[in-house]
Amino acid sequence: MRHFFLTSTTALALASGSAAFANDLRNEALELFAPLPSTIPALNANPVTPEKIDLGKALFFDPRMSASGVFSCNSCHNLATGGDDNMPTSIGHGWQKGPRNSPTVLNSVFNEAQFWDGRAPDLAEQAKGPVQAGVEMANTPSNVVATLNSMPQYVEWFTASFPEEAEPVSFDNFAKAIEAYEATLITPAPFDAWLNGDDAALSEMETAGLSLFIDKGCASCHSGVNLGGNGYYPFGLIEKPGADILPEGDKGRFAVTATADDEYVFRASPLRNIDQTAPYFHSGIVWDLKVAVQVMGESQLGEDLTEDEADKIVAFLGSLTGEMPEVVYPILPAETAATPRPTGEVK
Amino acid sequence: MRHFFLTSTTALALASGSAAFANDLRNEALELFAPLPSTIPALNANPVTPEKIDLGKALFFDPRMSASGVFSCNSCHNLATGGDDNMPTSIGHGWQKGPRNSPTVLNSVFNEAQFWDGRAPDLAEQAKGPVQAGVEMANTPSNVVATLNSMPQYVEWFTASFPEEAEPVSFDNFAKAIEAYEATLITPAPFDAWLNGDDAALSEMETAGLSLFIDKGCASCHSGVNLGGNGYYPFGLIEKPGADILPEGDKGRFAVTATADDEYVFRASPLRNIDQTAPYFHSGIVWDLKVAVQVMGESQLGEDLTEDEADKIVAFLGSLTGEMPEVVYPILPAETAATPRPTGEVK
Repeated sequence: MRHFFLTSTTALALASGSAAFANDLRNEALELFAPLPSTIPALNANPVTPEKIDLGKALFFDPRMSASGVFSCNSCHNLATGGDDNMPTSIGHGWQKGPRNSPTVLNSVFNEAQFWDGRAPDLAEQAKGPVQAGVEMANTPSNVVATLNSMPQYVEWFTASFPEEAEPVSFDNFAKAIEAYEATLITPAPFDAWLNGDDAALSEMETAGLSLFIDKGCASCHSGVNLGGNGYYPFGLIEKPGADILPEGDKGRFAVTATADDEYVFRASPLRNIDQTAPYFHSGIVWDLKVAVQVMGESQLGEDLTEDEADKIVAFLGSLTGEMPEVVYPILPAETAATPRPTGEVK
Repeated sequence: MRHFFLTSTTALALASGSAAFANDLRNEALELFAPLPSTIPALNANPVTPEKIDLGKALFFDPRMSASGVFSCNSCHNLATGGDDNMPTSIGHGWQKGPRNSPTVLNSVFNEAQFWDGRAPDLAEQAKGPVQAGVEMANTPSNVVATLNSMPQYVEWFTASFPEEAEPVSFDNFAKAIEAYEATLITPAPFDAWLNGDDAALSEMETAGLSLFIDKGCASCHSGVNLGGNGYYPFGLIEKPGADILPEGDKGRFAVTATADDEYVFRASPLRNIDQTAPYFHSGIVWDLKVAVQVMGESQLGEDLTEDEADKIVAFLGSLTGEMPEVVYPILPAETAATPRPTGEVK
């Protein structure tokens, strides 16, 4: 197993306590992780323009995209609170509870696929989900398009964002604009500065945590730009956690692939800004990051982490919390006589 | 009645069609209305400081001020959509419906009193209402204070905002900070520019609408800085509208004063940004501003406004829509282990 192999070199480096250590650790880290890029990533068949970003921002914050007029994308992926909603599982249309914890939108463009089970290949596809889910925004594509077409300002914005298209206002373009906006929601963190060569960006405790994060094997699943979000693993690889943390009814990726091997398989959580996004796991049942780290140690690695080890890993995870994007709150177009009326009715 | 008196002078002015007309109309208007002041108004026992404004903004946008974690002040007074929520009556805790249409927070500091029945003398008192209302945010003062005290960043912000106080984190100060922030939510409009002397700020149709607004008597109730919000009047002064618009069960200010004269008495709506805040009336039942104007004409003035007259008045009302405040979306403190957990439970 990878983490046994890594232990020896890192332990040696730790003992040396020199600048060479920082370089060794950095080289090791750069094989596992990557700093955030300095530019917005290219999106699949969706060129990002300033017009599209602005439109996407308006749509992201617009509660009229839900049937009731209560929920916007930002309700459950709140940019004021780490890009999520600080609840075990979200409350949606008709006060219904969603089945899984709402993941952060921040840096989500770097995930290999979206949702806990990876059922959406990209953010555009993801954006189409909650808006239609009966327990979330409970809307329909045709009602979204009717709502948008009822407000001339939106039609203008769509036309400017999709200038080549005969019918710029469409549900597909609604999703593409949101994807373009979400691609800008990137949070450079001390860990990026450290990966980029700034030794002073991490404290001694944080680098010790990073060493442990690698040596104990956490990085086997939580790797890449987002330290996660790029692979699927059984929750309970070594030891299945209790049914409160891993409810029996939610079989994870099995619902997507219908393959027995995928029972209780989930996408490894991306870990950027993780200390801003309690509670944890798809069940949202654990509020304390240290406890979450300990649960992972036991269930995924068979490691009974000491208090000191868990504290150090938590310190390292704190270095993944980045500078939040400055968002000027949008001013949205006013409804017109043609705008479909909001309804809180539960069908 | 005032509007008969005013008719003659304005009709004369209209006939002249000259710059003198603009001045005459302006002088008349300045007796009835006032432009927005250029500075934030002084608040009762609540000095406004930059620290307090920033704190108030954080609180205004923080959904953790509600028991469920779903609703912030901004949910029903959304600064993206004219400072209200575009619904007949708001949906709140447990998917319950509020009894009255959510009024705009914009320029609300200039209202003589708050709520449709004026039961709160100022915005600080108002802010304490929804946070505790079972159908809105369903929280308690002690839970709000516990939530705030659980996040060190909030404690710092309160200490900086109320530096003289032994216990800066309190429910009273929570309300005062929100009041300070709300006092900044002011929207200078073309009508202000016109009142301040810029003839070109209003179109011919808009000044014609203003003349009608004065002559027909609208300004008898809708006067002052906010063109309303400063007096109480029976809804149905001349002719009671139908029960859809004026539901029998809601007796308005009667609930505050227990005086028979106050049955179906409401605070005259402030009219700034009115074309951004459909639907209309305390019942939120009328979506079209022109229809709302016509209903008012009949019920309050006994005037059967022509289509042309209503169109002109609506055009004038459009000139009350101002520049929305630019709001940088706040970054809120993360919860800690001590933060009370959100609960969607309905008691």
